[in-house]
Amino acid sequence: MEGATFLERLEEACTARRSLLCVGLDPDPALMPVDDVFEFNRAIIDATSDLVCAYKPNLAFYEALGLPGLEALEKTLRHIPPGIVTIGDAKRGDIGSTARAYARAMFEVWGFDAVTLNPYLGGDSLEPFLAYGDRGIFLLCRTSNPGATDFQSLVTLAEGPRRPLYQQVALKAKEWNRGRQVGLVVGATYPQELRGVRALCPEMPILIPGIGAQGGDLEAAVRWGTDGRGRLAIISATRQVIYASRGRDFPEAARRAASALRDEVNRILAGEGKGWS
Amino acid sequence: MEGATFLERLEEACTARRSLLCVGLDPDPALMPVDDVFEFNRAIIDATSDLVCAYKPNLAFYEALGLPGLEALEKTLRHIPPGIVTIGDAKRGDIGSTARAYARAMFEVWGFDAVTLNPYLGGDSLEPFLAYGDRGIFLLCRTSNPGATDFQSLVTLAEGPRRPLYQQVALKAKEWNRGRQVGLVVGATYPQELRGVRALCPEMPILIPGIGAQGGDLEAAVRWGTDGRGRLAIISATRQVIYASRGRDFPEAARRAASALRDEVNRILAGEGKGWS
Repeated sequence: MEGATFLERLEEACTARRSLLCVGLDPDPALMPVDDVFEFNRAIIDATSDLVCAYKPNLAFYEALGLPGLEALEKTLRHIPPGIVTIGDAKRGDIGSTARAYARAMFEVWGFDAVTLNPYLGGDSLEPFLAYGDRGIFLLCRTSNPGATDFQSLVTLAEGPRRPLYQQVALKAKEWNRGRQVGLVVGATYPQELRGVRALCPEMPILIPGIGAQGGDLEAAVRWGTDGRGRLAIISATRQVIYASRGRDFPEAARRAASALRDEVNRILAGEGKGWS
Repeated sequence: MEGATFLERLEEACTARRSLLCVGLDPDPALMPVDDVFEFNRAIIDATSDLVCAYKPNLAFYEALGLPGLEALEKTLRHIPPGIVTIGDAKRGDIGSTARAYARAMFEVWGFDAVTLNPYLGGDSLEPFLAYGDRGIFLLCRTSNPGATDFQSLVTLAEGPRRPLYQQVALKAKEWNRGRQVGLVVGATYPQELRGVRALCPEMPILIPGIGAQGGDLEAAVRWGTDGRGRLAIISATRQVIYASRGRDFPEAARRAASALRDEVNRILAGEGKGWS
């Protein structure tokens, strides 16, 4: 899809595989059944690439392994088949020339299609990323962790009704979405909040982590995270797929887990009358 | 200072050189007078290491150069003399096992003494960093950029009086500072806000970027950023030091700029009756 926008590529990736599933590629030496990070990722990708719309490597796991980890990330990204969206889960956020450097790192050095960003620094910290017109950003809105309540839930006074901070982020993200490059991150562990954000932002993609190991509610994530057509939600799973088995059968186990998740998502979509036509 | 806390090492680094100055090591190929990142940093360090309490590499600039950039960061960190504090300006923030991976990356792989973190994800995102008892964290509170007002200025309702979000971050940081490992980042471009944060948190180190190229007020940064003894403020300068000359004399120019800044800080401290005894 040469020349396509991020949103077009995302929709195409979902439609082609009838899948809203994104698999996180977070190699943890304490959990991997093999030693080599790239071999691990390659096996996971080869076993699941017909089942997913996106892969989401979280950079922390590669940085924790030093330069060899980052070399493995480079090889992993080259191995992901074209047509599948890559989301660099980096949660970056910095100002001015530094934000430009991060945008270059994420979009030119690594070549991700989209990146997760932290909104705390405000609009000017996002501009260098939006300058890459064919790429997307996902702003942290309501994260999946318990500490999300520390600041994201604070009630704020701004124009209009009183709202928690994470809804202010969602509303600002709408403003910044004139070029249709902006999405949000909302954890499946907060289904009511997800429902509220989707109501505020019917037109934006929402990346939804937190199902599986974190205990998020898949049914609610699909029902309330998707738009009226049953699209624009990216259901992200990591540990329950890539660590489905700790033995040598881990690729087959990952495939079974990814397949079951995709099917379950599609069953919920169909129940809502929003299945794949 | 084997076995010392981060705060003890910071105080010792300041006292030994009578300096609150931190120099940012942000190599930008468009501005560097030499091609090689490590050679550039080495020349800057050799020219300024008796004038500063800390060096602060921002990881974005290294990541933007790919693996060779990160190799240069590794060599740079090895070249910084012992006794000078290293602050990894990474503004990371993530949850659970991912935060543990980032903490490992920053404190074990790179070996920084302290790291800047983004508070948006809340307290549990900081715990893996605080688990390294001899290291420090600086939480973004009021950043130096114009977009800081988008969310950080929002008035919030919580216990006690109505406060802007960045002050809620400062108050939470106080709670999280039981182990004396937590500091704040407040831009010199917002002097009144800096004054308010110092009043809330008299006991915490404040990292103050934004003087020089960003137009922050040095006088206010020193007067209102330091504690009652004239300590606990880290005045950070980058472009006005490392790019003081774009010619071959850049090390000498960096030294002159760093020396002038340190002296100016000390003149302001002395004027407040808070000089080095």
